[in-house]
Amino acid sequence: MSTAFIRTLREDPADAEVASHKLLVRACYIRRAAPGIYTWLPLGLRTLRKIEAIVREEMDAIGGQEVHFPGLLPAEPYKASGRWSDYGPTLFTLTDRKDNDYLLAPTHEEMFTLAVKDMYSSYKDLPAVIYQIQTKYRDEARPRAGIIRGRDFVMKDSYSFDVDDAGLEASYRLHRDAYERLFARLGLDYVIVNAMAGAMGGSHSEEFLHPSPIGEDTFVRSAGGYAANAEAVTTVVPDPVDASGVGPARVVDTPDTPTIETLVDLCNEAYPRADGRPWRASDTLKNVVMVLTHPDGRRELLVVGVPGDRDIDMRRLEAAVAPAEAEMATDDDFEGHPELVRGYIGPTAIGPNSPKRRVEIDQEGNERLTGSVRYLVDPRIVEGTSWVTGANETKKHVLDLVMGRDFTADGTIEAATIHEGDPAPDGSGPLSLARGIELGHIFALGRKYSRALDLTVLDENGKAQVVTMGSYGVGVSRVMAALAEANHDEHGLTWPIAVAPYHVQVLATGKDEEIFSTAASIAQALDAEGIEVLYDDRRKVSAGVKFADAELLGLPYTLVVGRDLGKQGTVEIRDRRSAERHSVPANEAAEHLASLVHQALAAAAGDQGS
Amino acid sequence: MSTAFIRTLREDPADAEVASHKLLVRACYIRRAAPGIYTWLPLGLRTLRKIEAIVREEMDAIGGQEVHFPGLLPAEPYKASGRWSDYGPTLFTLTDRKDNDYLLAPTHEEMFTLAVKDMYSSYKDLPAVIYQIQTKYRDEARPRAGIIRGRDFVMKDSYSFDVDDAGLEASYRLHRDAYERLFARLGLDYVIVNAMAGAMGGSHSEEFLHPSPIGEDTFVRSAGGYAANAEAVTTVVPDPVDASGVGPARVVDTPDTPTIETLVDLCNEAYPRADGRPWRASDTLKNVVMVLTHPDGRRELLVVGVPGDRDIDMRRLEAAVAPAEAEMATDDDFEGHPELVRGYIGPTAIGPNSPKRRVEIDQEGNERLTGSVRYLVDPRIVEGTSWVTGANETKKHVLDLVMGRDFTADGTIEAATIHEGDPAPDGSGPLSLARGIELGHIFALGRKYSRALDLTVLDENGKAQVVTMGSYGVGVSRVMAALAEANHDEHGLTWPIAVAPYHVQVLATGKDEEIFSTAASIAQALDAEGIEVLYDDRRKVSAGVKFADAELLGLPYTLVVGRDLGKQGTVEIRDRRSAERHSVPANEAAEHLASLVHQALAAAAGDQGS
Repeated sequence: MSTAFIRTLREDPADAEVASHKLLVRACYIRRAAPGIYTWLPLGLRTLRKIEAIVREEMDAIGGQEVHFPGLLPAEPYKASGRWSDYGPTLFTLTDRKDNDYLLAPTHEEMFTLAVKDMYSSYKDLPAVIYQIQTKYRDEARPRAGIIRGRDFVMKDSYSFDVDDAGLEASYRLHRDAYERLFARLGLDYVIVNAMAGAMGGSHSEEFLHPSPIGEDTFVRSAGGYAANAEAVTTVVPDPVDASGVGPARVVDTPDTPTIETLVDLCNEAYPRADGRPWRASDTLKNVVMVLTHPDGRRELLVVGVPGDRDIDMRRLEAAVAPAEAEMATDDDFEGHPELVRGYIGPTAIGPNSPKRRVEIDQEGNERLTGSVRYLVDPRIVEGTSWVTGANETKKHVLDLVMGRDFTADGTIEAATIHEGDPAPDGSGPLSLARGIELGHIFALGRKYSRALDLTVLDENGKAQVVTMGSYGVGVSRVMAALAEANHDEHGLTWPIAVAPYHVQVLATGKDEEIFSTAASIAQALDAEGIEVLYDDRRKVSAGVKFADAELLGLPYTLVVGRDLGKQGTVEIRDRRSAERHSVPANEAAEHLASLVHQALAAAAGDQGS
Repeated sequence: MSTAFIRTLREDPADAEVASHKLLVRACYIRRAAPGIYTWLPLGLRTLRKIEAIVREEMDAIGGQEVHFPGLLPAEPYKASGRWSDYGPTLFTLTDRKDNDYLLAPTHEEMFTLAVKDMYSSYKDLPAVIYQIQTKYRDEARPRAGIIRGRDFVMKDSYSFDVDDAGLEASYRLHRDAYERLFARLGLDYVIVNAMAGAMGGSHSEEFLHPSPIGEDTFVRSAGGYAANAEAVTTVVPDPVDASGVGPARVVDTPDTPTIETLVDLCNEAYPRADGRPWRASDTLKNVVMVLTHPDGRRELLVVGVPGDRDIDMRRLEAAVAPAEAEMATDDDFEGHPELVRGYIGPTAIGPNSPKRRVEIDQEGNERLTGSVRYLVDPRIVEGTSWVTGANETKKHVLDLVMGRDFTADGTIEAATIHEGDPAPDGSGPLSLARGIELGHIFALGRKYSRALDLTVLDENGKAQVVTMGSYGVGVSRVMAALAEANHDEHGLTWPIAVAPYHVQVLATGKDEEIFSTAASIAQALDAEGIEVLYDDRRKVSAGVKFADAELLGLPYTLVVGRDLGKQGTVEIRDRRSAERHSVPANEAAEHLASLVHQALAAAAGDQGS
């Protein structure tokens, strides 16, 4: 410790909000180099490499072959697949000295496809699983939480190649099982949920989420076994309603109703319902103005209508509009749109209902809607439902505005928040919600990339078949953050032994030369037993600081050589996770602790069932 | 082999000129992804990782602590050090979505300096050696020879931090010794030569060159112990000459003299020297028009004058004008310069001799020369020397043009080729020339980066001292190319066992099931002994193809299970490098070969003297 490139911090870094970020910086595992870009310091690099090694073992166990593609890639293959534009500003792009386009790879489907095309030509060459563990680059709009969502991150990405769909399913299952073993081995809880494929494309995909309150993914589960990322949940659409008995829409004064709650209260007081039941938030239709940024940089206003008891879920919205990015409209965006009366936006001024809506034919002969912003509604806004909503005039709302009778929309969108108790789309019961950290994502890609890049092999009959692919990612650096989230207490990190940067920290506390010489010889003896030791040999550092540092760093065992050595010839062994302590004679300490470590390592390896 | 991601090529790749490039591609170790950018296939990645592991061991042995800095970096630290501009177009640069400047790191002096500044504050924290093994990026103007000079490459870069010059010398020496052990251990011949620091800066630096005819570096040695990269050689400057007896310069007709040789012949015939000795090429002064591209993109014409028996050495020229890049002037560059009469350029029309030369004061108050191109001459062009050179008129040269009397230059430049037998600058005798591949480069940087980025520590008296630094690189991927250059024959690669991707290739040749089952069980037995085995289990591939592939791949040992198995129960063991073969009973083969491999590995480890 006296020479190690380690300097712990007593204070949380100002920009850190989650425990893993705070602790990994304070304990000197990582340091910020730029927004969302981190340097791996010696401790962090050791833990990262141990996680990588475990991932590598599990990939090798399913026949994966490791390669390493460049991080800096020519644009052509990504232009061929469409991702050069689909990724939009999330792609780091550059030009070389000859003005050729390059990118920093966000993931490598195109390159693996081309490599297999280069080397394989027959169905006999398949199936194949090829992988790499590598730094990836994505210029995230909102990097956050340290290495949970960075702009560079270490990822294991593997790719399967099969001649037919059954082969793809087998390769997909092989990865799914490998991931289950991997996360079990790392001691990380996980849930497998249906997911959206996003820019990746493909027929179906699943995510491995680690349940955690600080996770940025929301997922749902039903008692009947449904599990999905909130982004992938489809709303159960109610049947159309017979609105023949509903009176005509009527505009009413609604002063002082800045919120849905105040609007509902006012309506109940001033305009009670004819049927006697009170107005509820779910009777209101809230129209939210968003702005989409398309990959080509074009900005588009979009109004999203959701029942007033729900909000816009930004991640569901972004998943729905991908590859476009979405954000709330700003004051500037409202300019030139007098029909959008802020706080009182109603369907009759927008979308197909706008009196200004025109169909234009552009130069390529495509129909384009102009004259009003696009209007998409939650799937619950079905034919015949009546709504309390904005009247497009300040301080006025309209009651009994009926979908299909008084207004329509340009379509539906899955962007509303999901509520605890919402029905599962497969009828398996009410949903419960939780948050999770995405550890892995497996995609049955199908033929998107092989078609774009013309990867075929000859089948048994000599006929060219387009190869079908899967792609499978593990966020290796994010796994480290998830492990830190799952393994810490108020004093610091509490690593599982399989990924701890060292197994043991030896502390010499006191001033006697004997303490330091005994500690040094125990550290040496442990080292000789193959135990990884960090020896805190600092001379002018108090015992209190050493204990605090040891707890912060979070190695599984601490061996304390202190004043008990002189008094009774003993040293103390502390278990970081259980906080158990026991004394052993100094001359037996190394052997005793080595045996504890070997047992713990064996138990950790045993968790994988081997 | 039947499922491995390996496909050998019979033909050399079209763009490959050197053996390592041809063989590493043909044997499926690497594949080109873009100009100067390569993909590491399974075999290549295994060998690269083994070299990395050996480098890591030697760095750890001198107390190096491994970290990993991002490859994608913010521009600010590089702007502070000046390298953002000094690197010019060699730096890959980009902007992120917020239009901030970023770069792909060519090397990491700035980041290590900042990290130490962040964590250390006292002389007690020093000395420190910190390193990483990582992909670096340089947009080389002329990538060549596969992974010998790529635009991305794997480099070990370490940095030393010391409080004083004696400390720096000690850290420098530590690295120098570690590099000697490293290259000895890899079995690579090397020469340590003085070098130019280039864009890196610093007081002195040395290169480790692997002598090889395909190396792009030329280096010189004298019997007296001088050794330097040709870039760093300084010319021994002759004493001034008394030119009082030399007659006036005279312009003569020189038709049909397209070369120095024809010019000399014509002069000897038409204008013999008064002193009776013949004209020689070294009496002529050749003026070559170059164009420099400065880091800010500005192009500048430069005429370089060298004795006619020498050429421009582009690498010496580039080293001399760095950070500018140099190339031969093109037709376009001559436009607007009627004073440059191609083929007949003489000193009297250029540089300070030009009648058009003016001194202008620019807006910042700096003097700038205008009206003629800059003129630099070889240091041998000393006061009083007389020259046959261009007369700035078509088909005319001038004789007896005396330096200092008839013309001057803007300065001297070390850009002429070095000739075998030139004197060593330190007087240690005539130089001999050879070519080499740069394996490593060690720099005593001094305080350039610590000053630019304000890295100080408090000394024993509590006074702030600017830290002094060294930086030390090993081209890990280039080392692999050098190993391939040094270890191959006409059939393929012949890896040393320490870096071979596998130790043994087991070949099953024939059709009998017994051959394949025996081969498989020997491969398994070897694997159980910890031997790394590649088993060629391909069924419909001829013995000839298998042998050819095995020789191309270059594993140290091949074990052949073929028809001798049925006849006499034996298999054959072949040593790839010595080509020795011997038969052993099949049931003893695994044990016998395992023992050979273990001996060879021990001997390889023994080369390092441990």
